[in-house]
Amino acid sequence: MSLTTVKEALEIVVNNSQNFGIEKVDFLNSCGRILKENIFADRDFPPFDRVSMDGIAISSEAFNNGQRKFNIEGIQAAGSAQLTLQNTSNCMEAMTGAVLPKNTDAVIQYELLTIENGTATINLDALKSFQNIHLKGTDKKQGDLLIKENTLISPAEIGVFATVGKSTVKVAKQPKVIIVSTGNELVEVGEIPADHQIRRSNVFTMVSLLEKLHIKADTLHILDDREVLLTKIESLLNNYDVLVFSGAVSKGKFDFIPEVLNELGVEKLFHEVKQRPGKPFWFGRKVYTERSRSETTIFALPGNPVSTFVNCIKYFNPWYCKSVGLNFENKQQAILSEDFYFKPELTYFLQVKLSQVEGKLMATPISGKGSGDLANLVEADAFLELPDNRSNFTKGEVFPVIIYRQ
Amino acid sequence: MSLTTVKEALEIVVNNSQNFGIEKVDFLNSCGRILKENIFADRDFPPFDRVSMDGIAISSEAFNNGQRKFNIEGIQAAGSAQLTLQNTSNCMEAMTGAVLPKNTDAVIQYELLTIENGTATINLDALKSFQNIHLKGTDKKQGDLLIKENTLISPAEIGVFATVGKSTVKVAKQPKVIIVSTGNELVEVGEIPADHQIRRSNVFTMVSLLEKLHIKADTLHILDDREVLLTKIESLLNNYDVLVFSGAVSKGKFDFIPEVLNELGVEKLFHEVKQRPGKPFWFGRKVYTERSRSETTIFALPGNPVSTFVNCIKYFNPWYCKSVGLNFENKQQAILSEDFYFKPELTYFLQVKLSQVEGKLMATPISGKGSGDLANLVEADAFLELPDNRSNFTKGEVFPVIIYRQ
Repeated sequence: MSLTTVKEALEIVVNNSQNFGIEKVDFLNSCGRILKENIFADRDFPPFDRVSMDGIAISSEAFNNGQRKFNIEGIQAAGSAQLTLQNTSNCMEAMTGAVLPKNTDAVIQYELLTIENGTATINLDALKSFQNIHLKGTDKKQGDLLIKENTLISPAEIGVFATVGKSTVKVAKQPKVIIVSTGNELVEVGEIPADHQIRRSNVFTMVSLLEKLHIKADTLHILDDREVLLTKIESLLNNYDVLVFSGAVSKGKFDFIPEVLNELGVEKLFHEVKQRPGKPFWFGRKVYTERSRSETTIFALPGNPVSTFVNCIKYFNPWYCKSVGLNFENKQQAILSEDFYFKPELTYFLQVKLSQVEGKLMATPISGKGSGDLANLVEADAFLELPDNRSNFTKGEVFPVIIYRQ
Repeated sequence: MSLTTVKEALEIVVNNSQNFGIEKVDFLNSCGRILKENIFADRDFPPFDRVSMDGIAISSEAFNNGQRKFNIEGIQAAGSAQLTLQNTSNCMEAMTGAVLPKNTDAVIQYELLTIENGTATINLDALKSFQNIHLKGTDKKQGDLLIKENTLISPAEIGVFATVGKSTVKVAKQPKVIIVSTGNELVEVGEIPADHQIRRSNVFTMVSLLEKLHIKADTLHILDDREVLLTKIESLLNNYDVLVFSGAVSKGKFDFIPEVLNELGVEKLFHEVKQRPGKPFWFGRKVYTERSRSETTIFALPGNPVSTFVNCIKYFNPWYCKSVGLNFENKQQAILSEDFYFKPELTYFLQVKLSQVEGKLMATPISGKGSGDLANLVEADAFLELPDNRSNFTKGEVFPVIIYRQ
């Protein structure tokens, strides 16, 4: 039987994205979410001819006729309604952010002025056209599209929402996710494990990985008992958009997850991917006809920590992006900094430390002693994705990279 | 008067970092925080000779003597105490994650077995030493340092905390920050501005930028009134580690912030930096002798949106990193993708769109019509930092880059 390749697996995962709908949130809580409406300019920007330096506003005609001394008629402050310069051989002090006073068309900054007894003398030979004025509508016109639907919201977008008065915005709803550990060898973090036991850790790593996507996942532990798994998973299928399992998907006597999912009517889309680590990955979907929840997607990941980790960011993240409409394709690549050898005909996710040299992203392998070595994850920053069709990888070659630490 | 250069300004800012102390938090809430203790292995990893494939555990001596058929004595499951193989010409089924049974030293995966009537036949010519066994302590020894103090905690670290039973961890306390807008031209996001008014936006952009550092900042708006500013800022100095102002730091008639801060005993460390945008940046500090709060740092940023934005990430972020002990130096660089000209002798923070080509980070300028054009921020990803000592920047040259969108 030929295994599913990494490319095929990713395609199947992404082609089985879900739609979680749309919700409105306060704009200030929208950072990290996916925008689900277009944002337009509600007025011109700037909305008026805006003074862009502190100084005096004058009529350029007077200046160009040779006048250099101007009596100050008043002050145009930011936040005040537009004043009118009554006599165009006078000037008006004008502050950054203020409306340009009527009958003026140039602003001379204080640095070029001498002000004495209410008269400003300009130390300047020639004016630029509309000097120090940011003209109405220069940046954007009312009705212009400022931010497109399906944008990942960052602080820059938050500022634009505020500027155009979008106090609430439409964003993609988040999936309801539960992360389930299995395995009788696991004890809680606060417990002292017996010699043959270890602590639960994968679910927490995954909770944190999903937090980066602003998804708040639930967690659960189920013992390796076929009947208990059947009952509990049936209930989870009814209540969640996504089930993520860690463990019990390989060939062991107590690896009940695949058969239990099958018995519960979940369609297997693939099991086992031509990769290391993370090969026993099982992926499936249940589609309902008569329910409010139309489908549930199942990521059943192998239980060792690095397998879980790499599969979560390699598959879950793109699936999520596609589901919420984010046009995401990981095009990041890095340059291998030393020769590397890996024999099996599997895509190898090599743990690497990244560094940047003159704009080039270099990837240095971290030597691991097994895919289960979580401690290596804290020494590395990323996985370099080495293709499955050869064994020798040469210093200087460029490969796709999945970065998990910025 | 020679202006403070960007390099000098950054040095002054970073040399005036604060110490906010240490607190304990639940490990699952520590992602994005700075670790303030070393994390050690509480036991060997793996903690026992661990089976790493599902199959049968045998004595290699029997195999090496030519034996290929082994009667199955029992099953060693993950999570069960170690069993003993009673007869070394028998085998024990053994599951991934289980303790290796006593009297065995090799595991043969199911893929290489034929099992019939309780007897496993091995289809294999030669064993590797400790085949499919992850030996106790191979990854880490009890007492090994796993994570160093002052690490930025990511999902990989969360997994390690869980593994070694650190249900609470010591992290750097966050500063108490308030972001204050000034300017009579500002109205709230939910309001319709009059012709001469605009909506408040900078404070919200900054709240979001600080959220990325896991800092929850308060916000306030104060009108451009000298007496009101005096009273309110005095109270803020007593209650916050950091005050961030947006606006009122330039040469305008109502730019009261510098003089008010001076009157309140805040030491000015610099005012105006040789850069565009963001030149009128004012930075200072108040040190107390008889208070519980020992000092307050003041970032008074110019009020236009892009100035505020660039100064926040160029100066506040490194100041924060230094304060919490994170060994952070922005060494990221990008390659200019087209010629660029900028005449003034100022460091220019050029808004750029980033793309990655074969591991190289390319920066393409976004043409802006003024530093106040917030809408450009949503089209760009980063600022390329062009030095102040020349005007011509050539395609292919490498410059430092500050990335604000991942």
